[in-house]
Amino acid sequence: MSTDTATYPVTPRNRVKRLHERGSYDRAAVHAVLDAAMLCHVAYVIDGQPYATPTLFWRKGETLYWHGSSASRMLRHLKAGVPACLTVAHLDGLVLARSGFNHSANYRSAMCFGTARLVEDAGEKAEAMADVVDRFYPGRSALVRPITAQEAKATTIIAMTIEEAAAKVRAKGVGDDEADFALPIWAGVIPVTTVIGAVEPCSRLVPGVERPETLSIFPEGGRLDDALLAGQRAYEKT
Amino acid sequence: MSTDTATYPVTPRNRVKRLHERGSYDRAAVHAVLDAAMLCHVAYVIDGQPYATPTLFWRKGETLYWHGSSASRMLRHLKAGVPACLTVAHLDGLVLARSGFNHSANYRSAMCFGTARLVEDAGEKAEAMADVVDRFYPGRSALVRPITAQEAKATTIIAMTIEEAAAKVRAKGVGDDEADFALPIWAGVIPVTTVIGAVEPCSRLVPGVERPETLSIFPEGGRLDDALLAGQRAYEKT
Repeated sequence: MSTDTATYPVTPRNRVKRLHERGSYDRAAVHAVLDAAMLCHVAYVIDGQPYATPTLFWRKGETLYWHGSSASRMLRHLKAGVPACLTVAHLDGLVLARSGFNHSANYRSAMCFGTARLVEDAGEKAEAMADVVDRFYPGRSALVRPITAQEAKATTIIAMTIEEAAAKVRAKGVGDDEADFALPIWAGVIPVTTVIGAVEPCSRLVPGVERPETLSIFPEGGRLDDALLAGQRAYEKT
Repeated sequence: MSTDTATYPVTPRNRVKRLHERGSYDRAAVHAVLDAAMLCHVAYVIDGQPYATPTLFWRKGETLYWHGSSASRMLRHLKAGVPACLTVAHLDGLVLARSGFNHSANYRSAMCFGTARLVEDAGEKAEAMADVVDRFYPGRSALVRPITAQEAKATTIIAMTIEEAAAKVRAKGVGDDEADFALPIWAGVIPVTTVIGAVEPCSRLVPGVERPETLSIFPEGGRLDDALLAGQRAYEKT
């Protein structure tokens, strides 16, 4: 699949059906939703049963990586991979309208479709095991105790190239029916944000060990979104 | 299925495989994760393709409800329902260890399995359409403009009784290997919390209309988790 175009192909799988004016197939729009997140949900099918598994993930170009999951045993027997859907959703606000029907939420979401495969190549796997640290904490893989052969063996990494994707975003005020605006009913938006708290250093730090400067992308009171986007930008430069 | 027991049955579908010491099959533990959330991800299979669809949901006893989704068209033709998995995950902290392998996250998650069905009974549907407002905003369905027949027709509600479920929680500090604690490497936890911002009243409010007192469960700077748990408690009393 060419990744030279600015948009993903649109098929029945990724076409936005409900409220399609909120949808976008732009790679940049999809990446913006993905790169502001650490947590995704991956959907698989095992013996006809669907699973939505929450997991940490990261993006490298058009490939998404995540840690071993309930699908890893299945994948070991399916070298060709299995269809999967990796979804990210951020809740940004609760929207209270003058009718129940127009109640809504502000959000940013992205659904990505492709074929999940086990990362078995030793080189790709070693790179991924450094990337899972460096993507979130710039340069950190060089600062920590090196990975052992046993740890590498115990780690399962799954990869999926994005074949199709769609972003869907609502970011606005109350969308009441025109006639309802005249009603004496309170309406408004309650914004919500995921923020960074005060860092809790490990109680067993060797005396004198300072927090690395690169972790300043996580300032107390800052938005987690901004920190993760800054981490992704730093990761892409390396 | 009996709902008299304190725990869900354990089967291959919901057994916690990785890091099983973090898992629980207690109904109360699963409900605590669900009730602190507004957003879930539902996994379905359509023509062999899995989808993880983000959506608002709520819990009424052992039944989960959510709004129409990409599965609604499929469900219209499958009166018996389809297997689904509804998952909630809260990210609570980023855990930086002295080795890449022991990097982790603090989180609370719940995966619920059952058979998704379209809510077609008029009475159950009317109740659900009031509940989707009242579960989040106590007593609000009585304050808003009543729903019209056209709106009811345009709304799809899906229900799933929880057949099996598991909660999985990590809530602790750095879990380094004992030998690694002696290394001069910084380690710690970066906590993250979803907080409520300053309410943004609709710019077209009728003069003199005040915000209902019941919305005080959403104080500026408060935790969204706490507000949603308070909403669920109020909803269960009605």
